[in-house]
Amino acid sequence: MLVNGRNCGRRGALSNTAAQQYFVGQDILSVRQFDRERLEYLFALAEEMRTIVKREGSSSILRGRVLACLFYEPSTRTSSSFVAAMSRLGGSVIPINEVRYSSVTKGESLPDTVRTLECYSDVIVLRHPEVGSAQIAAQAARKPVINAGDGIGEHPTQALLDIFTIEEELGGIDGMTIGMAGDLKFGRTVHSLARLLSLFDVKLRFVAPQSLRIPPELIEEVASKGIPYLEAESLQDVISELDVLYVTRVQKERLDLSLYEQVKDFYSVTPESMQQAKRRMVVMHPLPRVGEIQQSVDSDPRAAYFRQMENGMYVRMALLAAVLGKG
Amino acid sequence: MLVNGRNCGRRGALSNTAAQQYFVGQDILSVRQFDRERLEYLFALAEEMRTIVKREGSSSILRGRVLACLFYEPSTRTSSSFVAAMSRLGGSVIPINEVRYSSVTKGESLPDTVRTLECYSDVIVLRHPEVGSAQIAAQAARKPVINAGDGIGEHPTQALLDIFTIEEELGGIDGMTIGMAGDLKFGRTVHSLARLLSLFDVKLRFVAPQSLRIPPELIEEVASKGIPYLEAESLQDVISELDVLYVTRVQKERLDLSLYEQVKDFYSVTPESMQQAKRRMVVMHPLPRVGEIQQSVDSDPRAAYFRQMENGMYVRMALLAAVLGKG
Amino acid sequence: MLVNGRNCGRRGALSNTAAQQYFVGQDILSVRQFDRERLEYLFALAEEMRTIVKREGSSSILRGRVLACLFYEPSTRTSSSFVAAMSRLGGSVIPINEVRYSSVTKGESLPDTVRTLECYSDVIVLRHPEVGSAQIAAQAARKPVINAGDGIGEHPTQALLDIFTIEEELGGIDGMTIGMAGDLKFGRTVHSLARLLSLFDVKLRFVAPQSLRIPPELIEEVASKGIPYLEAESLQDVISELDVLYVTRVQKERLDLSLYEQVKDFYSVTPESMQQAKRRMVVMHPLPRVGEIQQSVDSDPRAAYFRQMENGMYVRMALLAAVLGKG
Repeated sequence: MLVNGRNCGRRGALSNTAAQQYFVGQDILSVRQFDRERLEYLFALAEEMRTIVKREGSSSILRGRVLACLFYEPSTRTSSSFVAAMSRLGGSVIPINEVRYSSVTKGESLPDTVRTLECYSDVIVLRHPEVGSAQIAAQAARKPVINAGDGIGEHPTQALLDIFTIEEELGGIDGMTIGMAGDLKFGRTVHSLARLLSLFDVKLRFVAPQSLRIPPELIEEVASKGIPYLEAESLQDVISELDVLYVTRVQKERLDLSLYEQVKDFYSVTPESMQQAKRRMVVMHPLPRVGEIQQSVDSDPRAAYFRQMENGMYVRMALLAAVLGKG
Repeated sequence: MLVNGRNCGRRGALSNTAAQQYFVGQDILSVRQFDRERLEYLFALAEEMRTIVKREGSSSILRGRVLACLFYEPSTRTSSSFVAAMSRLGGSVIPINEVRYSSVTKGESLPDTVRTLECYSDVIVLRHPEVGSAQIAAQAARKPVINAGDGIGEHPTQALLDIFTIEEELGGIDGMTIGMAGDLKFGRTVHSLARLLSLFDVKLRFVAPQSLRIPPELIEEVASKGIPYLEAESLQDVISELDVLYVTRVQKERLDLSLYEQVKDFYSVTPESMQQAKRRMVVMHPLPRVGEIQQSVDSDPRAAYFRQMENGMYVRMALLAAVLGKG
Repeated sequence: MLVNGRNCGRRGALSNTAAQQYFVGQDILSVRQFDRERLEYLFALAEEMRTIVKREGSSSILRGRVLACLFYEPSTRTSSSFVAAMSRLGGSVIPINEVRYSSVTKGESLPDTVRTLECYSDVIVLRHPEVGSAQIAAQAARKPVINAGDGIGEHPTQALLDIFTIEEELGGIDGMTIGMAGDLKFGRTVHSLARLLSLFDVKLRFVAPQSLRIPPELIEEVASKGIPYLEAESLQDVISELDVLYVTRVQKERLDLSLYEQVKDFYSVTPESMQQAKRRMVVMHPLPRVGEIQQSVDSDPRAAYFRQMENGMYVRMALLAAVLGKG
């Protein structure tokens, strides 16, 4: 495909497979759409994208294509990543960040907005505060819709970039022990990632205070796939066995203040806690962080969160190319 | 011109005519600038644009050109359409949506803002809440200014896409009976469209409650051109004879609430009312709609409002190319 | 380099000099980074940019490169200028204007935001209300950061376009007498320009009311370079000897109201005051203006403030190309 004008992915994953066909014209709404074959296809394509960016800065495979980036709530990180991804593929972007002030305040429905935007564009990225909105948009649109977060629902491109980062950092996912720490109750990021990891042969470790424990239904889902897991209240109990430590933000508003003050340091990753970790462990965070990882950890080569950000662009380039039939 | 690098419009309209010359460097401020020859030139050019988009996604005839999209009030639909139009011609856009927070709050005049922006750009699209502002901007600027709505003044590109849609849907405008329903008093969309239609051999039907009747001066203008017209209070009285039903939003704030509740259903287009219409009638709406056309009408092949949106992009591509001398 | 694919600058300034090398990968934070050689290199490059824009509209030397335009406070003029500059070089822009609503409100630090954005982009332009923020951003980022204004700190690209305009308008800077009028106390624009001018053989005239006099430390700095200067309270006292009159806005909020009413007309440039000026004097203003220069002066050929705006785009094109190694 891309580099040198032909398919040349690692593992032959970019040949004309069922996975490649699957993505053409496809909405990307949930991590539940992905199996190992599709993930591996996407990983290979994202690696191609990295090669293109490192070698040439950009490609022109989406020249003349238009992305409508429809954000009903702001998210600098996610929207910037999609804008950069589309730009680096040679396409254009209609950035729509002010929906709250505009047509919508005139009472327009989401399906009408989406059907209007697909008149102008080839693919729609949607961020919306309400669960299920991406599904509604996808039903209304003939063009592909990519869910960039629908409230406490899903944020599949985040989970995809997370698992791609584990693959890239460790060279594989099978056999790894992955710890998730922080707010495991409300963090949709962690839920989606846990679901994707369940497709692989991994061990999971959930580290959270009592009040922010991972929901029982997710535990059941993971267990039903035969994934060994443990819950812990302290990072110290598990850090030494981890290959990946995935840290999430504990949001002040989720806890009463005294509890927040108590837990915030308890779950903070410091140079000291890093000393107990494996030499090749990977620290990840979806960002923004507040105090969960001290800045002094940034220079540790195991700190992967900014590489994780960069991977987000490659994964989104891969998704855009794939759904537009240029994967 | 465009396709295959040469003029190849229907009816030979794209040859080097007076109409083509007219547009080069021209401000587009009002529908009053258009006669039949100019409209037909624009229709032919917009059709070329559709062909380009359908065939290749985009063109590069405006590569290196920059559009300043200056919106003093938000309008997702119109600004997105212009951004897409410029992008699909290979040009770039400076999107300026926050004028209210910025230079203007430091007290800058519209002429100064426009003269600054033309230092960076090749064409300016202006949306402004005040009548006459597009005229003021055009006087200040040496580069072409396109009026994208100046308060209750004009919104010529809307009227142009409307009449282009009638042409496209019915294959011609002469001989047609066109009904306009809803708020005919304040709806600038309807006023501009009625003016353009008066250039053709049409019959007009105005359907509105007493309090939202079409202004007498517009009736006089239409009548003076020899256009037969009727006013009605009920859609049922006229729907069966219409070739086009153009529906507009009745804005709650225009009516007292009890009257609003009364009329809103009365003017609502439903599958039932569509049964009384001609088999080839076209339903149009500038969108956003609230309740004037039920969603259940969307699947009726006569529902043209989303095709109308798409036509908006082609018409704006045609205008941008024409004023920049690439028509 | 650019035109005809080779270095062809005036004075040979575009040959592979130390100045050219200096800019590659360089942060642009302060006018203190510039000496005459670097300025002359930049002037030559900016002139090339003008030639490109006049002749072809744009270049493709930054095709595939991405600029992150990160504005923590709105500035239509500056952001539009950078967007246009990047577009006319063939590159793409991630416009980020809503930082206040977004990640930052989740508590993210400036270094984290910048490190995230450099994952997606090749160069970052930063506008921030706090002094020193550009320095902080530059320390965090590996990619070049261009300061587009950090509070009452620096706004180096403004000063560079100002001095480039003097060079362009008069054909040189040495030997000129430059007057600065208005708010000389708080106007960072004037301070930066005075510093740059001190690299040349000029005379300076500072015209301001007592309460808005130029700070003593700046006077000292200028004097220490051997630059002759005078302070005056009235424009009339100096206007006849000036080659350049640089006018700045007197901000209402800086003065009590009665004083404001008193001085605002006193420093207003009118057709009458222009009669006392040299026939080839140049009037400049960073814009936006309020009442400091009457609109009736705009048609005077000596009114250079809109040419100055246009020069801003060329200077920013030059900087972007230079720091990305394409100068």
